[in-house]
Amino acid sequence: MPADRAPLAAPRPYRVELLAIPGLPEVRAGDDVARLFLQALSPASISLVSGDVLAVAQKVISKAEGRMVPLSSVEPGPRARELALQTGKDPRLVELILRESDEISRVARGVLIVRHRLGFTSANAGIDRSNVCQGEDDETVLLLPEDPDASAERLRRTIRDETGADVGVLIVDSHGRPFRLGTVGVSIGVAGLCALWDRRGEVDRHGYVLRHTEVALADEIAAAASLMMGQAAEGTPLVLVRGLRLPPQPGVAANLYRSKELDLYRP
Amino acid sequence: MPADRAPLAAPRPYRVELLAIPGLPEVRAGDDVARLFLQALSPASISLVSGDVLAVAQKVISKAEGRMVPLSSVEPGPRARELALQTGKDPRLVELILRESDEISRVARGVLIVRHRLGFTSANAGIDRSNVCQGEDDETVLLLPEDPDASAERLRRTIRDETGADVGVLIVDSHGRPFRLGTVGVSIGVAGLCALWDRRGEVDRHGYVLRHTEVALADEIAAAASLMMGQAAEGTPLVLVRGLRLPPQPGVAANLYRSKELDLYRP
Repeated sequence: MPADRAPLAAPRPYRVELLAIPGLPEVRAGDDVARLFLQALSPASISLVSGDVLAVAQKVISKAEGRMVPLSSVEPGPRARELALQTGKDPRLVELILRESDEISRVARGVLIVRHRLGFTSANAGIDRSNVCQGEDDETVLLLPEDPDASAERLRRTIRDETGADVGVLIVDSHGRPFRLGTVGVSIGVAGLCALWDRRGEVDRHGYVLRHTEVALADEIAAAASLMMGQAAEGTPLVLVRGLRLPPQPGVAANLYRSKELDLYRP
Repeated sequence: MPADRAPLAAPRPYRVELLAIPGLPEVRAGDDVARLFLQALSPASISLVSGDVLAVAQKVISKAEGRMVPLSSVEPGPRARELALQTGKDPRLVELILRESDEISRVARGVLIVRHRLGFTSANAGIDRSNVCQGEDDETVLLLPEDPDASAERLRRTIRDETGADVGVLIVDSHGRPFRLGTVGVSIGVAGLCALWDRRGEVDRHGYVLRHTEVALADEIAAAASLMMGQAAEGTPLVLVRGLRLPPQPGVAANLYRSKELDLYRP
Protein backbone atom coordinates (compact mmCIF):
# COMPACT_ATOMS: atom_id res chain seq x y z
CA MET A 1 0.00 0.00 0.00
CA PRO A 2 1.59 3.29 -1.09
CA ALA A 3 2.37 5.67 1.76
CA ASP A 4 0.21 8.40 0.23
CA ARG A 5 -2.91 6.25 0.51
CA ALA A 6 -4.53 6.73 3.87
CA PRO A 7 -5.96 3.78 5.78
CA LEU A 8 -9.65 3.17 5.12
CA ALA A 9 -10.94 4.58 8.40
CA ALA A 10 -8.71 7.65 8.53
CA PRO A 11 -10.23 10.56 10.42
CA ARG A 12 -9.32 13.21 7.82
CA PRO A 13 -12.20 14.29 5.56
CA TYR A 14 -12.70 11.96 2.65
CA ARG A 15 -12.74 14.00 -0.51
CA VAL A 16 -12.48 12.73 -4.07
CA GLU A 17 -12.03 14.82 -7.17
CA LEU A 18 -13.06 13.94 -10.72
CA LEU A 19 -11.51 15.91 -13.53
CA ALA A 20 -12.38 15.54 -17.21
CA ILE A 21 -9.18 16.07 -19.18
CA PRO A 22 -9.76 18.02 -22.39
CA GLY A 23 -7.57 18.15 -25.45
CA LEU A 24 -7.11 14.50 -26.31
CA PRO A 25 -6.72 14.37 -30.11
CA GLU A 26 -8.63 12.00 -32.39
CA VAL A 27 -6.83 8.68 -31.84
CA ARG A 28 -5.58 6.60 -34.78
CA ALA A 29 -4.44 2.99 -35.07
CA GLY A 30 -0.93 2.61 -33.70
CA ASP A 31 -1.02 5.74 -31.55
CA ASP A 32 0.83 5.65 -28.24
CA VAL A 33 -2.12 6.52 -25.99
CA ALA A 34 -0.06 6.80 -22.78
CA ARG A 35 1.95 9.57 -24.46
CA LEU A 36 -1.25 11.26 -25.71
CA PHE A 37 -2.69 11.14 -22.17
CA LEU A 38 0.42 12.72 -20.66
CA GLN A 39 0.39 15.39 -23.38
CA ALA A 40 -3.24 16.18 -22.58
CA LEU A 41 -2.50 16.45 -18.84
CA SER A 42 0.46 18.76 -19.34
CA PRO A 43 -1.34 22.01 -20.40
CA ALA A 44 -3.68 21.56 -17.42
CA SER A 45 -0.51 21.49 -15.25
CA ILE A 46 -1.55 18.16 -13.78
CA SER A 47 1.18 15.90 -12.48
CA LEU A 48 0.02 12.38 -11.78
CA VAL A 49 0.63 11.06 -8.27
CA SER A 50 0.50 7.52 -6.95
CA GLY A 51 -3.06 6.57 -6.08
CA ASP A 52 -4.57 8.56 -8.96
CA VAL A 53 -6.89 6.62 -11.23
CA LEU A 54 -7.09 7.34 -14.96
CA ALA A 55 -10.35 6.25 -16.56
CA VAL A 56 -10.42 6.14 -20.33
CA ALA A 57 -13.25 5.43 -22.74
CA GLN A 58 -13.02 2.07 -24.48
CA LYS A 59 -13.30 3.67 -27.90
CA VAL A 60 -9.91 5.38 -27.53
CA ILE A 61 -8.12 2.11 -26.76
CA SER A 62 -9.94 0.19 -29.49
CA LYS A 63 -8.99 2.76 -32.09
CA ALA A 64 -5.35 2.86 -31.01
CA GLU A 65 -5.28 -0.94 -31.25
CA GLY A 66 -6.71 -0.85 -34.77
CA ARG A 67 -9.92 -2.72 -33.95
CA MET A 68 -11.87 -1.09 -36.78
CA VAL A 69 -13.53 -3.54 -39.17
CA PRO A 70 -15.17 -2.42 -42.45
CA LEU A 71 -18.49 -4.24 -42.68
CA SER A 72 -17.85 -4.79 -46.39
CA SER A 73 -15.03 -7.17 -45.40
CA VAL A 74 -17.35 -9.46 -43.40
CA GLU A 75 -19.09 -12.51 -44.88
CA PRO A 76 -22.02 -13.52 -42.66
CA GLY A 77 -22.54 -17.23 -42.00
CA PRO A 78 -25.91 -19.02 -41.79
CA ARG A 79 -26.34 -18.45 -38.01
CA ALA A 80 -25.64 -14.73 -38.45
CA ARG A 81 -28.19 -14.50 -41.27
CA GLU A 82 -30.80 -16.24 -39.14
CA LEU A 83 -30.19 -13.97 -36.11
CA ALA A 84 -30.16 -10.93 -38.39
CA LEU A 85 -33.68 -11.81 -39.50
CA GLN A 86 -34.82 -12.26 -35.88
CA THR A 87 -33.25 -9.06 -34.61
CA GLY A 88 -33.48 -6.81 -37.66
CA LYS A 89 -29.73 -6.13 -37.46
CA ASP A 90 -27.20 -6.08 -40.31
CA PRO A 91 -26.10 -9.72 -40.88
CA ARG A 92 -22.45 -8.64 -41.19
CA LEU A 93 -22.65 -6.90 -37.80
CA VAL A 94 -24.29 -10.02 -36.34
CA GLU A 95 -21.46 -12.13 -37.75
CA LEU A 96 -18.91 -9.95 -35.92
CA ILE A 97 -20.99 -10.13 -32.72
CA LEU A 98 -20.99 -13.94 -32.95
CA ARG A 99 -17.22 -14.04 -33.54
CA GLU A 100 -16.71 -11.93 -30.40
CA SER A 101 -19.05 -14.06 -28.26
CA ASP A 102 -19.20 -17.36 -26.42
CA GLU A 103 -22.92 -17.71 -26.01
CA ILE A 104 -26.19 -15.97 -26.86
CA SER A 105 -28.10 -14.70 -23.83
CA ARG A 106 -31.27 -13.12 -25.32
CA VAL A 107 -32.64 -12.45 -28.79
CA ALA A 108 -35.55 -10.18 -29.66
CA ARG A 109 -36.46 -7.55 -32.25
CA GLY A 110 -33.63 -5.01 -32.03
CA VAL A 111 -31.97 -6.97 -29.20
CA LEU A 112 -28.97 -9.29 -29.29
CA ILE A 113 -27.44 -9.85 -25.86
CA VAL A 114 -24.44 -12.14 -25.72
CA ARG A 115 -21.82 -13.42 -23.39
CA HIS A 116 -18.67 -11.79 -24.72
CA ARG A 117 -15.56 -13.96 -25.15
CA LEU A 118 -14.02 -11.81 -22.38
CA GLY A 119 -16.65 -13.08 -19.92
CA PHE A 120 -19.20 -10.31 -19.48
CA THR A 121 -22.71 -10.15 -20.88
CA SER A 122 -23.68 -7.17 -23.01
CA ALA A 123 -25.68 -6.03 -26.00
CA ASN A 124 -24.01 -6.53 -29.39
CA ALA A 125 -20.75 -7.77 -27.82
CA GLY A 126 -19.89 -4.15 -27.16
CA ILE A 127 -19.44 -3.50 -30.87
CA ASP A 128 -19.94 0.13 -31.69
CA ARG A 129 -20.60 1.91 -34.89
CA SER A 130 -17.37 3.76 -35.05
CA ASN A 131 -16.91 7.37 -35.95
CA VAL A 132 -14.18 6.32 -38.34
CA CYS A 133 -16.79 5.46 -40.94
CA GLN A 134 -16.00 6.29 -44.55
CA GLY A 135 -19.54 6.64 -45.86
CA GLU A 136 -22.54 4.42 -46.20
CA ASP A 137 -20.97 1.99 -48.64
CA ASP A 138 -18.08 1.10 -46.38
CA GLU A 139 -19.35 1.43 -42.86
CA THR A 140 -16.75 0.63 -40.24
CA VAL A 141 -17.45 -0.78 -36.80
CA LEU A 142 -15.21 -0.83 -33.77
CA LEU A 143 -14.61 -4.01 -31.76
CA LEU A 144 -13.61 -3.94 -28.09
CA PRO A 145 -9.86 -4.21 -27.42
CA GLU A 146 -8.46 -7.73 -27.84
CA ASP A 147 -7.59 -7.97 -24.12
CA PRO A 148 -8.59 -4.80 -22.22
CA ASP A 149 -7.02 -5.93 -18.91
CA ALA A 150 -3.71 -6.29 -20.73
CA SER A 151 -4.22 -2.91 -22.44
CA ALA A 152 -4.84 -1.29 -19.03
CA GLU A 153 -1.73 -2.93 -17.59
CA ARG A 154 0.44 -1.73 -20.50
CA LEU A 155 -0.87 1.81 -19.99
CA ARG A 156 -0.22 1.62 -16.26
CA ARG A 157 3.38 0.46 -16.75
CA THR A 158 4.16 3.05 -19.40
CA ILE A 159 2.76 5.84 -17.21
CA ARG A 160 4.76 4.59 -14.23
CA ASP A 161 7.92 4.42 -16.29
CA GLU A 162 7.38 7.93 -17.69
CA THR A 163 6.21 9.70 -14.52
CA GLY A 164 7.18 7.52 -11.55
CA ALA A 165 3.54 7.60 -10.40
CA ASP A 166 1.79 4.35 -9.53
CA VAL A 167 -1.64 5.07 -11.00
CA GLY A 168 -4.63 2.84 -11.50
CA VAL A 169 -6.04 2.52 -15.02
CA LEU A 170 -9.63 1.75 -16.00
CA ILE A 171 -10.97 1.14 -19.49
CA VAL A 172 -14.62 2.15 -19.39
CA ASP A 173 -17.56 1.04 -21.52
CA SER A 174 -21.26 1.77 -21.15
CA HIS A 175 -23.58 -1.17 -20.62
CA GLY A 176 -27.32 -1.54 -20.40
CA ARG A 177 -28.79 -3.50 -17.50
CA PRO A 178 -31.38 -6.30 -17.57
CA PHE A 179 -33.67 -4.77 -14.95
CA ARG A 180 -32.93 -1.07 -15.02
CA LEU A 181 -33.23 1.44 -17.83
CA GLY A 182 -30.32 3.48 -19.07
CA THR A 183 -26.67 2.66 -19.51
CA VAL A 184 -24.00 3.03 -16.84
CA GLY A 185 -20.23 3.04 -17.10
CA VAL A 186 -18.52 -0.26 -16.24
CA SER A 187 -14.89 -1.34 -16.30
CA ILE A 188 -13.82 -3.72 -19.06
CA GLY A 189 -10.10 -3.27 -18.32
CA VAL A 190 -8.46 -2.70 -14.94
CA ALA A 191 -4.86 -2.39 -13.81
CA GLY A 192 -3.25 -1.23 -10.60
CA LEU A 193 -6.36 -1.00 -8.43
CA CYS A 194 -8.85 -3.20 -6.67
CA ALA A 195 -11.69 -4.25 -9.02
CA LEU A 196 -13.83 -6.41 -6.72
CA TRP A 197 -13.53 -5.67 -3.01
CA ASP A 198 -13.94 -8.88 -1.08
CA ARG A 199 -15.30 -8.13 2.38
CA ARG A 200 -16.30 -11.68 3.25
CA GLY A 201 -15.77 -12.34 6.91
CA GLU A 202 -16.08 -8.69 7.96
CA VAL A 203 -18.76 -7.99 10.55
CA ASP A 204 -20.54 -4.78 11.45
CA ARG A 205 -20.43 -3.31 14.94
CA HIS A 206 -23.38 -5.43 16.01
CA GLY A 207 -21.59 -8.60 15.03
CA TYR A 208 -23.61 -9.20 11.87
CA VAL A 209 -21.80 -10.49 8.83
CA LEU A 210 -21.98 -7.75 6.18
CA ARG A 211 -24.89 -8.10 3.77
CA HIS A 212 -22.88 -6.99 0.76
CA THR A 213 -19.69 -8.96 0.89
CA GLU A 214 -18.31 -8.05 -2.51
CA VAL A 215 -18.28 -4.53 -3.85
CA ALA A 216 -17.60 -3.79 -7.53
CA LEU A 217 -15.31 -0.84 -6.84
CA ALA A 218 -13.93 -0.64 -10.39
CA ASP A 219 -17.48 -0.43 -11.77
CA GLU A 220 -18.43 2.29 -9.29
CA ILE A 221 -15.38 4.32 -10.34
CA ALA A 222 -16.21 3.66 -14.01
CA ALA A 223 -19.75 4.93 -13.44
CA ALA A 224 -18.40 8.06 -11.78
CA ALA A 225 -16.00 8.68 -14.67
CA SER A 226 -18.65 7.89 -17.25
CA LEU A 227 -20.81 10.70 -15.81
CA MET A 228 -18.17 13.12 -17.02
CA MET A 229 -17.26 11.48 -20.31
CA GLY A 230 -20.41 11.68 -22.35
CA GLN A 231 -21.83 15.08 -21.70
CA ALA A 232 -20.14 17.45 -24.09
CA ALA A 233 -21.06 17.12 -27.75
CA GLU A 234 -17.75 15.39 -28.44
CA GLY A 235 -17.31 13.86 -25.03
CA THR A 236 -14.14 13.84 -22.97
CA PRO A 237 -12.79 10.31 -23.03
CA LEU A 238 -10.22 10.77 -20.27
CA VAL A 239 -11.08 11.36 -16.61
CA LEU A 240 -8.69 11.66 -13.68
CA VAL A 241 -9.99 10.45 -10.31
CA ARG A 242 -7.95 11.71 -7.39
CA GLY A 243 -8.22 11.02 -3.66
CA LEU A 244 -9.81 7.56 -3.63
CA ARG A 245 -8.95 5.34 -0.71
CA LEU A 246 -8.94 1.87 -2.14
CA PRO A 247 -8.10 -1.51 -0.66
CA PRO A 248 -4.51 -2.35 -1.55
CA GLN A 249 -5.14 -5.54 -3.56
CA PRO A 250 -4.85 -4.81 -7.29
CA GLY A 251 -7.24 -6.65 -9.57
CA VAL A 252 -8.44 -6.98 -13.14
CA ALA A 253 -11.81 -6.46 -14.82
CA ALA A 254 -12.11 -10.22 -15.24
CA ASN A 255 -12.67 -10.36 -11.45
CA LEU A 256 -16.04 -8.71 -12.09
CA TYR A 257 -17.52 -11.27 -14.47
CA ARG A 258 -19.87 -13.96 -13.23
CA SER A 259 -18.92 -17.42 -14.36
CA LYS A 260 -21.58 -19.35 -16.28
CA GLU A 261 -22.22 -21.34 -13.09
CA LEU A 262 -23.10 -18.17 -11.17
CA ASP A 263 -25.33 -16.78 -13.92
CA LEU A 264 -28.86 -17.21 -12.58
CA TYR A 265 -30.43 -15.88 -15.76
CA ARG A 266 -28.76 -18.23 -18.21
CA PRO A 267 -31.28 -19.44 -20.80
CA MET B 1 -31.94 25.50 -15.27
CA PRO B 2 -30.26 27.37 -12.39
CA ALA B 3 -27.88 30.09 -13.48
CA ASP B 4 -24.95 28.46 -11.66
CA ARG B 5 -25.18 25.34 -13.82
CA ALA B 6 -23.06 25.74 -16.90
CA PRO B 7 -24.28 24.51 -20.27
CA LEU B 8 -23.23 20.96 -21.07
CA ALA B 9 -20.49 21.82 -23.54
CA ALA B 10 -18.99 24.71 -21.57
CA PRO B 11 -15.32 25.29 -22.29
CA ARG B 12 -14.30 25.65 -18.63
CA PRO B 13 -12.68 22.54 -17.08
CA TYR B 14 -15.21 20.03 -15.89
CA ARG B 15 -14.40 19.19 -12.29
CA VAL B 16 -16.63 17.36 -9.81
CA GLU B 17 -16.02 16.98 -6.12
CA LEU B 18 -17.29 14.20 -3.87
CA LEU B 19 -17.22 14.80 -0.15
CA ALA B 20 -18.19 12.26 2.50
CA ILE B 21 -19.85 14.17 5.34
CA PRO B 22 -18.88 12.81 8.76
CA GLY B 23 -20.72 13.26 12.02
CA LEU B 24 -24.23 12.09 11.18
CA PRO B 25 -25.62 10.62 14.42
CA GLU B 26 -27.32 7.23 14.65
CA VAL B 27 -30.78 7.93 13.20
CA ARG B 28 -33.97 6.94 15.05
CA ALA B 29 -37.59 6.60 13.95
CA GLY B 30 -39.19 10.04 13.65
CA ASP B 31 -35.92 11.95 13.28
CA ASP B 32 -35.91 14.98 11.00
CA VAL B 33 -33.12 13.86 8.67
CA ALA B 34 -32.96 17.13 6.71
CA ARG B 35 -32.11 18.91 9.97
CA LEU B 36 -29.54 16.21 10.87
CA PHE B 37 -27.91 16.62 7.44
CA LEU B 38 -27.65 20.38 7.81
CA GLN B 39 -26.22 19.96 11.31
CA ALA B 40 -23.59 17.54 9.94
CA LEU B 41 -22.64 19.98 7.15
CA SER B 42 -22.28 22.92 9.51
CA PRO B 43 -19.03 21.98 11.38
CA ALA B 44 -17.42 21.26 8.00
CA SER B 45 -18.37 24.86 7.05
CA ILE B 46 -20.19 23.64 3.99
CA SER B 47 -23.01 25.79 2.64
CA LEU B 48 -25.15 24.04 0.10
CA VAL B 49 -25.52 25.73 -3.27
CA SER B 50 -28.01 25.14 -6.05
CA GLY B 51 -26.83 22.28 -8.25
CA ASP B 52 -25.30 20.33 -5.37
CA VAL B 53 -26.45 16.74 -5.04
CA LEU B 54 -26.85 15.08 -1.64
CA ALA B 55 -26.64 11.30 -1.76
CA VAL B 56 -27.81 9.47 1.35
CA ALA B 57 -27.73 5.78 2.19
CA GLN B 58 -31.14 4.11 2.16
CA LYS B 59 -30.68 2.81 5.69
CA VAL B 60 -30.78 6.33 7.15
CA ILE B 61 -34.12 7.13 5.53
CA SER B 62 -35.64 3.75 6.38
CA LYS B 63 -34.72 4.15 10.04
CA ALA B 64 -36.08 7.71 10.24
CA GLU B 65 -39.31 6.43 8.70
CA GLY B 66 -39.59 3.65 11.27
CA ARG B 67 -39.34 0.79 8.78
CA MET B 68 -37.90 -1.63 11.36
CA VAL B 69 -39.83 -4.88 11.75
CA PRO B 70 -39.08 -7.40 14.52
CA LEU B 71 -39.05 -10.83 12.90
CA SER B 72 -40.89 -12.19 15.95
CA SER B 73 -43.94 -10.17 14.84
CA VAL B 74 -44.11 -11.88 11.44
CA GLU B 75 -46.24 -14.98 10.77
CA PRO B 76 -45.02 -16.70 7.59
CA GLY B 77 -47.65 -18.01 5.17
CA PRO B 78 -47.46 -21.28 3.18
CA ARG B 79 -45.68 -19.70 0.15
CA ALA B 80 -43.07 -18.13 2.44
CA ARG B 81 -42.47 -21.47 4.17
CA GLU B 82 -42.03 -23.21 0.82
CA LEU B 83 -39.59 -20.59 -0.48
CA ALA B 84 -37.75 -20.64 2.86
CA LEU B 85 -37.09 -24.35 2.35
CA GLN B 86 -35.88 -23.78 -1.23
CA THR B 87 -33.61 -20.86 -0.36
CA GLY B 88 -32.53 -21.75 3.18
CA LYS B 89 -33.71 -18.33 4.41
CA ASP B 90 -35.70 -17.53 7.55
CA PRO B 91 -39.41 -18.03 6.68
CA ARG B 92 -40.35 -14.81 8.49
CA LEU B 93 -37.83 -12.87 6.38
CA VAL B 94 -39.20 -14.54 3.25
CA GLU B 95 -42.73 -13.53 4.29
CA LEU B 96 -41.61 -9.88 4.48
CA ILE B 97 -39.83 -10.18 1.12
CA LEU B 98 -43.05 -11.48 -0.44
CA ARG B 99 -45.11 -8.66 1.09
CA GLU B 100 -42.69 -6.13 -0.42
CA SER B 101 -42.71 -7.77 -3.86
CA ASP B 102 -44.84 -8.06 -6.98
CA GLU B 103 -43.21 -11.06 -8.57
CA ILE B 104 -40.45 -13.61 -8.01
CA SER B 105 -37.61 -13.40 -10.50
CA ARG B 106 -35.24 -16.21 -9.44
CA VAL B 107 -35.02 -18.74 -6.62
CA ALA B 108 -32.01 -20.85 -5.70
CA ARG B 109 -30.15 -21.95 -2.58
CA GLY B 110 -29.34 -18.71 -0.76
CA VAL B 111 -30.93 -16.65 -3.56
CA LEU B 112 -34.31 -14.92 -3.68
CA ILE B 113 -34.50 -12.25 -6.37
CA VAL B 114 -37.80 -10.44 -6.67
CA ARG B 115 -39.43 -7.59 -8.46
CA HIS B 116 -39.99 -5.08 -5.67
CA ARG B 117 -43.39 -3.39 -5.43
CA LEU B 118 -41.55 -0.15 -6.29
CA GLY B 119 -40.62 -1.60 -9.71
CA PHE B 120 -36.98 -2.62 -9.54
CA THR B 121 -35.57 -6.13 -9.31
CA SER B 122 -33.26 -6.98 -6.43
CA ALA B 123 -32.22 -9.65 -3.98
CA ASN B 124 -34.44 -9.99 -0.89
CA ALA B 125 -36.59 -6.95 -1.81
CA GLY B 126 -33.76 -4.81 -0.45
CA ILE B 127 -34.54 -5.92 3.10
CA ASP B 128 -31.53 -5.56 5.31
CA ARG B 129 -30.70 -7.00 8.65
CA SER B 130 -30.76 -3.84 10.58
CA ASN B 131 -28.28 -2.73 13.15
CA VAL B 132 -31.16 -1.92 15.44
CA CYS B 133 -31.37 -5.57 16.48
CA GLN B 134 -32.11 -6.33 20.10
CA GLY B 135 -30.50 -9.73 20.30
CA GLU B 136 -31.00 -13.10 18.70
CA ASP B 137 -34.49 -13.69 20.06
CA ASP B 138 -35.93 -10.53 18.61
CA GLU B 139 -34.02 -9.84 15.45
CA THR B 140 -35.16 -6.72 13.64
CA VAL B 141 -34.98 -6.15 9.90
CA LEU B 142 -35.21 -2.92 7.98
CA LEU B 143 -37.54 -2.51 5.00
CA LEU B 144 -36.89 0.04 2.25
CA PRO B 145 -38.71 3.38 2.64
CA GLU B 146 -42.41 3.23 1.77
CA ASP B 147 -41.96 5.60 -1.20
CA PRO B 148 -38.30 6.64 -1.63
CA ASP B 149 -39.02 9.11 -4.45
CA ALA B 150 -41.43 10.91 -2.13
CA SER B 151 -38.89 10.77 0.71
CA ALA B 152 -36.26 12.33 -1.57
CA GLU B 153 -38.70 15.05 -2.64
CA ARG B 154 -39.57 15.89 0.98
CA LEU B 155 -35.88 16.16 1.81
CA ARG B 156 -35.26 18.36 -1.22
CA ARG B 157 -38.08 20.75 -0.30
CA THR B 158 -37.08 20.99 3.36
CA ILE B 159 -33.47 21.72 2.40
CA ARG B 160 -34.59 24.36 -0.11
CA ASP B 161 -36.84 25.98 2.49
CA GLU B 162 -34.08 25.98 5.12
CA THR B 163 -31.14 27.03 2.95
CA GLY B 164 -32.54 28.53 -0.26
CA ALA B 165 -30.39 26.06 -2.25
CA ASP B 166 -31.99 23.99 -4.97
CA VAL B 167 -30.18 20.71 -4.42
CA GLY B 168 -30.73 17.29 -5.91
CA VAL B 169 -31.34 14.40 -3.51
CA LEU B 170 -30.55 10.73 -4.10
CA ILE B 171 -31.43 7.82 -1.84
CA VAL B 172 -28.83 5.16 -2.53
CA ASP B 173 -28.96 1.39 -2.11
CA SER B 174 -26.47 -1.28 -3.16
CA HIS B 175 -27.64 -3.88 -5.65
CA GLY B 176 -26.08 -6.99 -7.08
CA ARG B 177 -26.16 -7.49 -10.84
CA PRO B 178 -27.26 -10.55 -12.84
CA PHE B 179 -24.13 -10.78 -14.97
CA ARG B 180 -21.44 -9.01 -12.99
CA LEU B 181 -20.04 -9.75 -9.58
CA GLY B 182 -20.11 -7.29 -6.73
CA THR B 183 -22.66 -4.72 -5.68
CA VAL B 184 -22.85 -1.15 -6.97
CA GLY B 185 -24.73 1.85 -5.65
CA VAL B 186 -28.03 2.62 -7.41
CA SER B 187 -30.69 5.25 -6.80
CA ILE B 188 -33.98 4.12 -5.29
CA GLY B 189 -35.16 7.67 -4.61
CA VAL B 190 -34.49 10.78 -6.70
CA ALA B 191 -35.63 14.38 -6.46
CA GLY B 192 -34.50 17.56 -8.14
CA LEU B 193 -32.20 16.07 -10.75
CA CYS B 194 -32.31 14.11 -13.97
CA ALA B 195 -32.50 10.36 -13.32
CA LEU B 196 -32.59 8.96 -16.85
CA TRP B 197 -31.05 11.15 -19.53
CA ASP B 198 -32.95 10.67 -22.74
CA ARG B 199 -30.67 11.39 -25.69
CA ARG B 200 -32.87 9.85 -28.36
CA GLY B 201 -32.61 11.79 -31.57
CA GLU B 202 -29.14 13.16 -30.86
CA VAL B 203 -26.51 12.35 -33.47
CA ASP B 204 -22.74 12.31 -33.26
CA ARG B 205 -20.56 14.47 -35.46
CA HIS B 206 -20.61 11.83 -38.21
CA GLY B 207 -24.38 11.87 -38.33
CA TYR B 208 -24.83 8.55 -36.53
CA VAL B 209 -27.63 8.25 -34.05
CA LEU B 210 -26.03 7.74 -30.62
CA ARG B 211 -25.62 4.12 -29.61
CA HIS B 212 -26.56 4.73 -25.99
CA THR B 213 -29.67 6.81 -26.11
CA GLU B 214 -30.58 6.67 -22.44
CA VAL B 215 -28.07 7.19 -19.68
CA ALA B 216 -28.85 6.29 -16.06
CA LEU B 217 -27.31 9.45 -14.60
CA ALA B 218 -28.84 9.00 -11.14
CA ASP B 219 -27.37 5.50 -10.93
CA GLU B 220 -23.95 6.73 -12.03
CA ILE B 221 -24.04 9.40 -9.32
CA ALA B 222 -25.24 6.81 -6.79
CA ALA B 223 -22.33 4.54 -7.71
CA ALA B 224 -19.89 7.42 -7.24
CA ALA B 225 -21.37 8.27 -3.84
CA SER B 226 -21.51 4.63 -2.83
CA LEU B 227 -17.74 4.39 -3.37
CA MET B 228 -17.35 6.78 -0.46
CA MET B 229 -20.11 5.48 1.80
CA GLY B 230 -19.03 2.00 2.66
CA GLN B 231 -15.34 2.22 3.27
CA ALA B 232 -14.89 3.26 6.88
CA ALA B 233 -15.78 0.69 9.53
CA GLU B 234 -18.98 2.60 10.29
CA GLY B 235 -19.48 4.02 6.85
CA THR B 236 -20.43 7.60 6.01
CA PRO B 237 -24.02 7.57 4.83
CA LEU B 238 -24.05 11.13 3.48
CA VAL B 239 -22.08 12.30 0.44
CA LEU B 240 -22.13 15.71 -1.18
CA VAL B 241 -21.53 15.81 -4.95
CA ARG B 242 -20.62 19.26 -6.22
CA GLY B 243 -19.96 20.54 -9.73
CA LEU B 244 -22.05 18.15 -11.82
CA ARG B 245 -23.45 19.50 -15.06
CA LEU B 246 -26.74 17.74 -15.46
CA PRO B 247 -29.52 18.06 -18.00
CA PRO B 248 -32.19 20.35 -16.59
CA GLN B 249 -35.12 17.89 -16.58
CA PRO B 250 -35.74 16.64 -13.04
CA GLY B 251 -36.78 13.02 -12.67
CA VAL B 252 -37.52 10.27 -10.18
CA ALA B 253 -35.96 6.87 -9.51
CA ALA B 254 -39.05 5.23 -10.98
CA ASN B 255 -37.81 6.48 -14.38
CA LEU B 256 -35.01 3.92 -14.07
CA TYR B 257 -37.11 0.77 -13.68
CA ARG B 258 -37.85 -1.45 -16.63
CA SER B 259 -41.50 -2.28 -17.02
CA LYS B 260 -42.36 -5.99 -17.07
CA GLU B 261 -42.79 -5.67 -20.84
CA LEU B 262 -39.19 -4.51 -21.25
CA ASP B 263 -37.75 -7.19 -18.95
CA LEU B 264 -36.05 -9.61 -21.32
CA TYR B 265 -35.14 -11.98 -18.51
CA ARG B 266 -38.59 -12.47 -17.06
CA PRO B 267 -39.13 -16.13 -16.16
